[in-house]
Amino acid sequence: MTERKEFRDLAPPEEAHEAIASLSLTPPPESVPLDDARGRVLAERVDATIDVPGFDRASMDGYAVRARDTFGADEADPEVLTLVGTVHAGEDPDVEVEPGTCAEISTGAVLPPGADAVVMVERTDDLGGEIAIRKAVAPGDSVMLAGADIAAGSRALGPGTRLTPREIGLLSALGVDEVPVCGTPTVGIVSTGDELVRPGDDLDPSRGEIYDVNSQTIAAGVAEAGGEPVLYPHAGDDYEEMERLLREAADECDLVLSSGSTSASAVDVIYRVIEERGDLLLHGVAVKPGKPMLVGRLDSSAATGTGQSAYVGLPGYPVSALTIFRTFVAPAIRRAAGLPEPRTATLTGEFAVRERYSEGRLRLMPVGVLEREDADLPLVYPVDKGSGATTSLVEADGVVEVHPDTEYIAAGERVEVTLFSPDVRVPRLLGVGEDDPLLSRLLDRVDAPRYLPVGSREGLRRLRDGVPDVAVVSGPTGREVETEQLGAWTREWGLVVSDPLDGLDSLVDDDVRFVNRDRAAGLRSTFDAALDELATERGESRAALADRIDGYDLTVKAHESPARAVLAGKADAGLGLRATAESLGLDFVSLGHERVVVHAAPDRSDKPAVSELVDALADSADELTALPGYDVP
Amino acid sequence: MTERKEFRDLAPPEEAHEAIASLSLTPPPESVPLDDARGRVLAERVDATIDVPGFDRASMDGYAVRARDTFGADEADPEVLTLVGTVHAGEDPDVEVEPGTCAEISTGAVLPPGADAVVMVERTDDLGGEIAIRKAVAPGDSVMLAGADIAAGSRALGPGTRLTPREIGLLSALGVDEVPVCGTPTVGIVSTGDELVRPGDDLDPSRGEIYDVNSQTIAAGVAEAGGEPVLYPHAGDDYEEMERLLREAADECDLVLSSGSTSASAVDVIYRVIEERGDLLLHGVAVKPGKPMLVGRLDSSAATGTGQSAYVGLPGYPVSALTIFRTFVAPAIRRAAGLPEPRTATLTGEFAVRERYSEGRLRLMPVGVLEREDADLPLVYPVDKGSGATTSLVEADGVVEVHPDTEYIAAGERVEVTLFSPDVRVPRLLGVGEDDPLLSRLLDRVDAPRYLPVGSREGLRRLRDGVPDVAVVSGPTGREVETEQLGAWTREWGLVVSDPLDGLDSLVDDDVRFVNRDRAAGLRSTFDAALDELATERGESRAALADRIDGYDLTVKAHESPARAVLAGKADAGLGLRATAESLGLDFVSLGHERVVVHAAPDRSDKPAVSELVDALADSADELTALPGYDVP
Repeated sequence: MTERKEFRDLAPPEEAHEAIASLSLTPPPESVPLDDARGRVLAERVDATIDVPGFDRASMDGYAVRARDTFGADEADPEVLTLVGTVHAGEDPDVEVEPGTCAEISTGAVLPPGADAVVMVERTDDLGGEIAIRKAVAPGDSVMLAGADIAAGSRALGPGTRLTPREIGLLSALGVDEVPVCGTPTVGIVSTGDELVRPGDDLDPSRGEIYDVNSQTIAAGVAEAGGEPVLYPHAGDDYEEMERLLREAADECDLVLSSGSTSASAVDVIYRVIEERGDLLLHGVAVKPGKPMLVGRLDSSAATGTGQSAYVGLPGYPVSALTIFRTFVAPAIRRAAGLPEPRTATLTGEFAVRERYSEGRLRLMPVGVLEREDADLPLVYPVDKGSGATTSLVEADGVVEVHPDTEYIAAGERVEVTLFSPDVRVPRLLGVGEDDPLLSRLLDRVDAPRYLPVGSREGLRRLRDGVPDVAVVSGPTGREVETEQLGAWTREWGLVVSDPLDGLDSLVDDDVRFVNRDRAAGLRSTFDAALDELATERGESRAALADRIDGYDLTVKAHESPARAVLAGKADAGLGLRATAESLGLDFVSLGHERVVVHAAPDRSDKPAVSELVDALADSADELTALPGYDVP
Repeated sequence: MTERKEFRDLAPPEEAHEAIASLSLTPPPESVPLDDARGRVLAERVDATIDVPGFDRASMDGYAVRARDTFGADEADPEVLTLVGTVHAGEDPDVEVEPGTCAEISTGAVLPPGADAVVMVERTDDLGGEIAIRKAVAPGDSVMLAGADIAAGSRALGPGTRLTPREIGLLSALGVDEVPVCGTPTVGIVSTGDELVRPGDDLDPSRGEIYDVNSQTIAAGVAEAGGEPVLYPHAGDDYEEMERLLREAADECDLVLSSGSTSASAVDVIYRVIEERGDLLLHGVAVKPGKPMLVGRLDSSAATGTGQSAYVGLPGYPVSALTIFRTFVAPAIRRAAGLPEPRTATLTGEFAVRERYSEGRLRLMPVGVLEREDADLPLVYPVDKGSGATTSLVEADGVVEVHPDTEYIAAGERVEVTLFSPDVRVPRLLGVGEDDPLLSRLLDRVDAPRYLPVGSREGLRRLRDGVPDVAVVSGPTGREVETEQLGAWTREWGLVVSDPLDGLDSLVDDDVRFVNRDRAAGLRSTFDAALDELATERGESRAALADRIDGYDLTVKAHESPARAVLAGKADAGLGLRATAESLGLDFVSLGHERVVVHAAPDRSDKPAVSELVDALADSADELTALPGYDVP
């Protein structure tokens, strides 16, 4: 076995922040057209170089007058002035207002010479060639003087100002069409690992291939933090290739992130490249998830060498990679882009369960949050499917920081959740249980739902423990839980097959390669019950029959997975639904109908989001048409 | 005078919301590459079509074993297994784990046939060809089963989900590279008005030309709301041209906004186009600022006719236009783009002054906010430079809603401010007073300052009234205000000239076209004091001398404006600073040095942001080098 790098001397989080802060990744300022300036940050002060307005400007429709000619005028006793012309907006006035005269003027027009005020049209009468002025005005009334809005030489906007529509308005008024802004740091992303395949390409799971999650996730995170992501081709685990790619990225980018492979050999290769072609400042940080993190500098290639680029190596698991990125790298990218730290959105909630912890490093525990109408605080529950799971990314709403010396969080304890972003939408409904295509469609009609397909028995268990609002259950569960049944439907189940076969008997007796569902599935319990029945008929044990089924122990997790194994030619029959067989164009051997029941926790059945789910079921005619074998009794 | 459209029957704000909600501006959904999906909203549910992982996957580096072979193993009494091969990530395993054997395995690799668990490397010893296992494992330990993360057929993400890096991670894991998202509504912006000039083009203020503020401001607002802005050329006030442009925009866009001109004739023309070529649903809304608002539908052109487009006419003044846009139009664009309403950021503050109001329509009063360390609540003050001012856009931080039946807000009253966006940065320092180039530079070194160049006397008055932290004052002010002086500098002032002239005498006696500063400026007071001195010398009155200066009453607002008039050839001499003359390459006739003093309100002198300004002055050597005629005594 090759020598492996260990992360034994883990740096405290503060040291990791300092190491990254010591890197230089700020690009030079640049100039962008005003059209592209939204969201950017001013690199320098902008002073006004013109007066706004550039002339004395009428701010009402009316008549330009010499104010002293109107003194004494009122409704009872108007002053009458001779009309000498008209000035529209966008015209050089060709009249002069002499004593005793006035000129018609539009809002925005240049005040003609001689005039020093405007009388609004509502306080005048047009007598034909003469105008009766029914109100006295003072010099300057209804006029915006040149430079009164902003004058040449004034400080308009300071450096560091983020450009929103309002600032863009002021820059427009000043006639600025090129804006000096902080540069956008370019961030190269090199993903490594022989097993990675780009989304959209074909995957060969038998070779252990998986889609590359980190590249696109981190690229989106870079863009969110104000950087410009640059994706490099996969490096594989080959030293030469990886060195070439890392140095190409170092040439072209302000910061290089490597990410992707979870294999120790890839980490070893990156180590060697950094040690030979750069400086390693830090490796390993005392944070969970995310321990394996590298911080350093990377030399540019000799040929085009522009010195060094900053480098951070992210862990391979997506949840760890994104956590490390968010915690340590995103703030550095924002600083380099001149952007302020965003207001972090936090929320106080009540922890749903008891959670033990004793690992001696800071834990950024991903948690889900659930809105409650009947309690002051939302419910907060830990999401931990292991750091290798990508679904944890979307099943959590934020993190709770658990300090190294915390031993446990008690059920009912108040916790502070840092939401992933201020616009995280907290789910209104949390459902758990059986995986079902009708349910998927019903959930589309609920606003902000979350559903965890943990299986029927586990769903009921969690409902009993008080976290979710509803559990969706099929098949015999062997559990007694006090619930309120909100509704139910039936689904036709059986064997999804490539070629017709003769029911359950054929599965047991013939040479049929089968794919089963896992024990968590209600459908599996229904299948086992049917097998029990056949065993009784034949006077055998279920175990004896199961032994004769080729693949009885080959179980998969979701309702479509067995059918997809059949479709891929890896099996002849899979446990599944008629609806699935028909949607995938496969044959189907019906073995019966099973009931799927929606249970609510008794104290949650009135929750508005629960009612939305019930309403969706009551109004599910369209969904049923699309799902053969389904019925709502 | 032409007949003008009046907005007499103003609709309540709710009716305006309803009218806009009745328009259809939702574009069809579209498909975008995963790279471009960040920030978009899923148009439909995405179900998993593959199992993730697609195989039983080692989640540790170590040895793949049959769990039952390890039963009973512990540190004291290891089980020894024969090593039969190695499986790396990205490889199809070419070994089978028979009883009594094991295979070396990397994290992420495919569990080889026969094995059902992984023992982590740290709990093993390599004996050379044989491996000592020092820990018993159960089946499934350190293995992620196929589909355990997410399984084929499961509901992955629901419709309406906003795609952040986390959702992009899950989509990557599923191999999705094209994402079905809600379409981006295209919003055409037609700006009207003969007086408007695009930023970057040359401006002729004598013709009353101004830069077009609304087009870019509203375009940025459209982009911020999730729409795609399309700018059309200026329409002027010509009926044919405006009709052609509005119909072209209606052909190409989901929503057309017109904006720009404040002239009544342009409004008249738009009215006619809408009435003849569309439907007018609403005109005029009881909101201040923003009364003149049109809502309707616009027919597409006959040739390419695709029916109708939604239409909203915004008022001409920038503050009104942006207020109406933000209040009524942006929410409709967000809905059409599938985006949720953003969490509005609000803040409770203490109103600084008494503000009367009695106009019978909802007022969205722009306010500035100032952080205070010595009080519980920040200070809130009204910003009202008239709706024609563009600087109000950036001098306000949010709005206070004043209901039609409110008569006044008292000084000290608590008010709720709706910030313009959750990332508005509330100023830490509010300064008022004299306009000065050294001050502009010092402010660059203060974090989050705001400075209102209202002039020296007005600055002192406001300081006395308790709103700002500091006032910057030059020249004789004739005011006694209790302040703390924080620092001071001197600046050399005089006449900025195109050709040398002979001091103040020449200005009075010769044929010199002069541009003065307005009475608010401390520099003007200094100039008048010098004129008093000359009058005394000559035994005349100041008024008599002033009468002989051509342009004494021609006043402009900021320190550079007179110099720029000289530069443009419109004057021979302007009141100004040596620093300005040198920076613009003009000649300068020195008339003396005046003192500029920074005063703090006595209770604000300890405020951190005030200290930052004082520190900047103490450390202003670089700034002084760049500003000839300046000195810090």
